[in-house]
Amino acid sequence: MISKAQIKKIASYKEAKFRNQDKVFIVEGVKMVDELINSAFEIEFICALPQWIEANKAIYKRAKNILELREEDLKKLSTMKSPNQVLAVVKQQTPKEIILEDRLVIVLDQIKDPGNLGTIIRLSHWFGIEDIICSENSVDIYNPKTIQSTMGSFFRVNITYTNLKKYLKSLPKTYPVYCSVLEGGKNIYNETLSSQGLIVIGSESHGISKEVLSEATHLIKIPNFAKGSKAESLNASIAAGIIISEFKRR
Amino acid sequence: MISKAQIKKIASYKEAKFRNQDKVFIVEGVKMVDELINSAFEIEFICALPQWIEANKAIYKRAKNILELREEDLKKLSTMKSPNQVLAVVKQQTPKEIILEDRLVIVLDQIKDPGNLGTIIRLSHWFGIEDIICSENSVDIYNPKTIQSTMGSFFRVNITYTNLKKYLKSLPKTYPVYCSVLEGGKNIYNETLSSQGLIVIGSESHGISKEVLSEATHLIKIPNFAKGSKAESLNASIAAGIIISEFKRR
Repeated sequence: MISKAQIKKIASYKEAKFRNQDKVFIVEGVKMVDELINSAFEIEFICALPQWIEANKAIYKRAKNILELREEDLKKLSTMKSPNQVLAVVKQQTPKEIILEDRLVIVLDQIKDPGNLGTIIRLSHWFGIEDIICSENSVDIYNPKTIQSTMGSFFRVNITYTNLKKYLKSLPKTYPVYCSVLEGGKNIYNETLSSQGLIVIGSESHGISKEVLSEATHLIKIPNFAKGSKAESLNASIAAGIIISEFKRR
Repeated sequence: MISKAQIKKIASYKEAKFRNQDKVFIVEGVKMVDELINSAFEIEFICALPQWIEANKAIYKRAKNILELREEDLKKLSTMKSPNQVLAVVKQQTPKEIILEDRLVIVLDQIKDPGNLGTIIRLSHWFGIEDIICSENSVDIYNPKTIQSTMGSFFRVNITYTNLKKYLKSLPKTYPVYCSVLEGGKNIYNETLSSQGLIVIGSESHGISKEVLSEATHLIKIPNFAKGSKAESLNASIAAGIIISEFKRR
């Protein structure tokens, strides 16, 4: 049975500060923990209701500890509206170095909404994108809402944070950097899109920062078809979906 | 100044039952109320902090009542994390009849997430789609989370609920009904897509119901590019974005 001290510790991981101190994060729910177990991530503990433990004896080898939990403790630890049987404390991984050749890499500039980030990770996985680079002021990938909204894709995509300006300046001058903008870009539907390069997506309220925009080699936009009253913008993850689809559709 | 009875009444509109009884819904925040005022919707009341009333005297003609509100009352009434100055009680509109010729119409089957519905309304507006038909078991468009996530597009798109099976059966046999599926559909990137027809999107967990699928004239899918470990599905609003973009891109 889990101890009070352990419960307190795990509960503290709702905050980035304590997650980063211990270099861990939380994964919740039957389906997500299933995906986790089939990934390369190192599991520190699993805390679960007795029925989950009974049904999942086979996974004992993958976790250092499996702790039994009461329903009321799971409710305390969970960030989900309807906690679902199990919760794992997982080691944060060091991101792999980004390979630039022969592939598309997604770059996220100042994405603040954890759900949007999670959804972009999920759709990147769908489109076979293996790497995402986030600006340092983007939301934390280990935010519980981000993790949950990736629906397991979190374990399949390499995500790294960096100073985007410096990073972009370090690239070869001819390396394609596509920036998605609301105004002044070329209609994405009319462009010949490269099969290697960076695709930069900004936040819906602030767009892409000036210092990043100044490193763009191509400005692209999704044209607005709204009649009469204009539509203001697209949600950042919707824009990302449409843009990545355009790059991949050939 | 607003009365206690009025506060109680407005607070009750968080629930569908009371909204539908009085045929009203709630719109919140400076930007959304701005969009509302520029729309054809009939405003019942506006409740606002003194600073909003002072800054918006010009709108008095559009609202039957403008009631001053204290910060603590706004917090009580609001469904937003950070309530923003103003909240309006608005008359529900009777949807217009759907025109089928020369246009694309979005059909949503059993979409349960209010944020997803709101995002789909917003992106439909962006792509110049004027009508959305929802299955009767879809989430309520007047759900506060739906309204807020449309970012004003709510006031620009005609949304109606119907028995989809009956509706689809009533259409001319040759009228295009595109259903988006995860398996068995044709790769959307290779299809010649019509500029008139219905585009049916299902929920991400349950897809499109069998009785609706059986009325499809075309099954289409967004191909999965994930390498190795497959990606399970796309979020319903992301799928809708990519599909609508494909229909509109010519």
